[in-house]
Amino acid sequence: MRLSGKPKTMIPKGVATFLPEGTSRRRAIERTILSIFSQWGYQEVITPIFEYLDVFSLGVGEELLNRAYKFVDRATGRIMVLRPDVTPQIARIAATLLNGQPLPLRLCYSANVFRHEEEHAGREREIFQIGGELIGASDAEADAEMIILAIEVLQKLGLRSFKIALGQMAFTRGVLRPFEPSPELFKKVLHSVGKKEASKLEELLKQEKVGPKVRKQVLSLLNLFGGEEVFKRAATLSDHPSCRDGLKRLKEVYTILKRAGHQDHLLIDLGEVRGFDYYTGTIFEVFTEGVGSELGGGGRYDHLLEKFGAPSASTGFALHIERVQWALEKVFNSPGDGAAARGDVEYSSVDFLILHPETAAQRAMALTHQLRNLGFRVIRKNGYEKGIDSYLANARKQHIRKILVVGEGKDPDPNKIGPSAEDYGAPLGGRNVNHGASLRSIDVRTGLEKIEKHQDFLERLRPN
Amino acid sequence: MRLSGKPKTMIPKGVATFLPEGTSRRRAIERTILSIFSQWGYQEVITPIFEYLDVFSLGVGEELLNRAYKFVDRATGRIMVLRPDVTPQIARIAATLLNGQPLPLRLCYSANVFRHEEEHAGREREIFQIGGELIGASDAEADAEMIILAIEVLQKLGLRSFKIALGQMAFTRGVLRPFEPSPELFKKVLHSVGKKEASKLEELLKQEKVGPKVRKQVLSLLNLFGGEEVFKRAATLSDHPSCRDGLKRLKEVYTILKRAGHQDHLLIDLGEVRGFDYYTGTIFEVFTEGVGSELGGGGRYDHLLEKFGAPSASTGFALHIERVQWALEKVFNSPGDGAAARGDVEYSSVDFLILHPETAAQRAMALTHQLRNLGFRVIRKNGYEKGIDSYLANARKQHIRKILVVGEGKDPDPNKIGPSAEDYGAPLGGRNVNHGASLRSIDVRTGLEKIEKHQDFLERLRPN
Repeated sequence: MRLSGKPKTMIPKGVATFLPEGTSRRRAIERTILSIFSQWGYQEVITPIFEYLDVFSLGVGEELLNRAYKFVDRATGRIMVLRPDVTPQIARIAATLLNGQPLPLRLCYSANVFRHEEEHAGREREIFQIGGELIGASDAEADAEMIILAIEVLQKLGLRSFKIALGQMAFTRGVLRPFEPSPELFKKVLHSVGKKEASKLEELLKQEKVGPKVRKQVLSLLNLFGGEEVFKRAATLSDHPSCRDGLKRLKEVYTILKRAGHQDHLLIDLGEVRGFDYYTGTIFEVFTEGVGSELGGGGRYDHLLEKFGAPSASTGFALHIERVQWALEKVFNSPGDGAAARGDVEYSSVDFLILHPETAAQRAMALTHQLRNLGFRVIRKNGYEKGIDSYLANARKQHIRKILVVGEGKDPDPNKIGPSAEDYGAPLGGRNVNHGASLRSIDVRTGLEKIEKHQDFLERLRPN
Repeated sequence: MRLSGKPKTMIPKGVATFLPEGTSRRRAIERTILSIFSQWGYQEVITPIFEYLDVFSLGVGEELLNRAYKFVDRATGRIMVLRPDVTPQIARIAATLLNGQPLPLRLCYSANVFRHEEEHAGREREIFQIGGELIGASDAEADAEMIILAIEVLQKLGLRSFKIALGQMAFTRGVLRPFEPSPELFKKVLHSVGKKEASKLEELLKQEKVGPKVRKQVLSLLNLFGGEEVFKRAATLSDHPSCRDGLKRLKEVYTILKRAGHQDHLLIDLGEVRGFDYYTGTIFEVFTEGVGSELGGGGRYDHLLEKFGAPSASTGFALHIERVQWALEKVFNSPGDGAAARGDVEYSSVDFLILHPETAAQRAMALTHQLRNLGFRVIRKNGYEKGIDSYLANARKQHIRKILVVGEGKDPDPNKIGPSAEDYGAPLGGRNVNHGASLRSIDVRTGLEKIEKHQDFLERLRPN
């Protein structure tokens, strides 16, 4: 059987395929973020890609579960779910396998999650996230730690211009409490608040016969948006204890963030609602110009771990790596900052392609080994029947930096190499010395050539 | 709803859960392997975790597909498969998205694959693999490159004692050809050969009325196992062209491996059969004492890419990371080699826990920032209401190396720090100088304390 049809129809929309250049950038981003998490004391864990639906669903709301991929496990007959979210998995691990460890726990992960999207929506169904969870810490410092960590990550990645929208679920929920909505209506109203759909929200509240005073309060949530002055306006909105406590906490967090020098990134948005049912307190989302959706976000979820048997106040956040990558590409492609941010390093796949005849195989193998031990990326090709020019043309397409030709011409014994091969870790044993052995190096981009002694070439590359 | 039942019943058997220490070891292994792949010119790609069954199944045999997890895609109604193998995905990408790139292509991946296992089998269902594919190279050097690369990876990871079993599918298939088995019988016979089930194999052949001469030839495959002398015995077994060519190729590969100094790791096993239908030539598997199954393996698959529309001779291999990790743990836990291999470094999660009162928050934040910029892993705790001893006890359990206490006692201005904070990247602006500011460091393991000046402490840690 053979494939018919175009490549485009071969793979589902919205799943991950990254070619070398994209993967290399993705890895660099992952490395940077995980090293910052590590420097902040977060330890990485690995969670399963699928698990039992009944257990997983303890931790998440219906809406997310509806968007999850499910299948029946042949071995047990139970339904499995491909994780649509990692936080409930970390909560489960913290509450079970790590139960009894001193708190707080700082855990992080790099993982993909899976969510159903309509084909035409053009959104990813396989989403790469890197996130951290701070488990067992209830204070404002913990709330602030998440946000400062997110800011540091984005700055170290090279993103300069971004905003953090701060919300407070205790405050927002508190405003809705007085009209005692059913859980379902509660969700609908929150959803409309989050989407800032004023007329839809008003209609919904009228329909549910919510009185004009509360209606006005709820609608005011849409305007509690801006700088520090929002705190004052918010204070007059409701005297529900949940609102009062929530606002007090948000101010504390704001003060810590200011002290850390991050005021310019902050926005307050008390109508902000993250799309997960488990958030209970300070929440935040990160936005940058030119990327329509948030780059990531997180917040406090104080009642998630108790679902798995070990109550613990917790907070966390995650970044949507693909969107972060888009945002960085915008920076990197801008003329000014871009060059500095990316250090103007051109993408390359391989440092040296070594070409040699069979007669020089030993020497070429030793050189390959030596260069790899020095950290270079090297491909070796025994025989160059197609002629150097053809290899040069391909090397250009393949982003190879240099071609080295070894054992050319009338060298009487092309395998004899210099005296210090052992120094570079070559597995050759004691061989004869040939101080004269030389090689030709060709710069792939410019085509410039240089012939020099094998030993001189290596000396030049060796770190001091 | 709350969780009932023991944690053990909460997650499916055989899926991945790695706690911090295991994840840290896993990451170290991944980093080492991917950096070697990179040094050999292999470029990493990322492939989707699920894709359409009808497309994926072009590349793999029925047996593997039967063990794959499948579900219906809501958006298209098509059946999706959780990848049970990565090689067919790389083949698809090479034949489509990368079609037209100069060959050979060297690609690698770090990915998990999913295979159904019976609950009681105790095998993983989520398997981490790191592998490489060399696409568009048909010569013996390419076959050998896979094997030498695998050997280098295992050696650099610290594994010293392992064996590579070399097989040849062209040879093995050639022996079966004369009795023209049906594709189904072909598979059954290959399966029995691979498992070295002599009596079952003999019965099967008798049942199918295979004549005594061919029966003897097929059974001989089980004995073509050992050192270089196997080549001689194998040469007399069959004069089928596929056997002759296969044997010639295997000898060439063996010669290259010998030249590279790897003879001691090699075993020839012409009854070896990898469990994938796509192999056509030289194949190999890696074994080590104490791990019952192979650590990995691979081989030549010259007809896989044509299924996706772009015929190309190719070879590849993958390592089963969990088994590699088991094998390494055996080495590391052995008294002699172990200490050397692991460099006798104890696992730690965090370098410094900084404790401080609210009054010293600025200075503690600066110190935290300074230490992280020097590459250390640091947690900061505002307030130590529980007393130092309690933090010390927890730090021991959490594998934290040192506790630093900042702003203790009667320091008149605990926030004033030394003059060169800016040198360490502290975001403090010009502050007053207080040369006398000191801190207390406590070694968590020994409990030994030291009080020294803030600046002296930093100078000591600073790289030269």
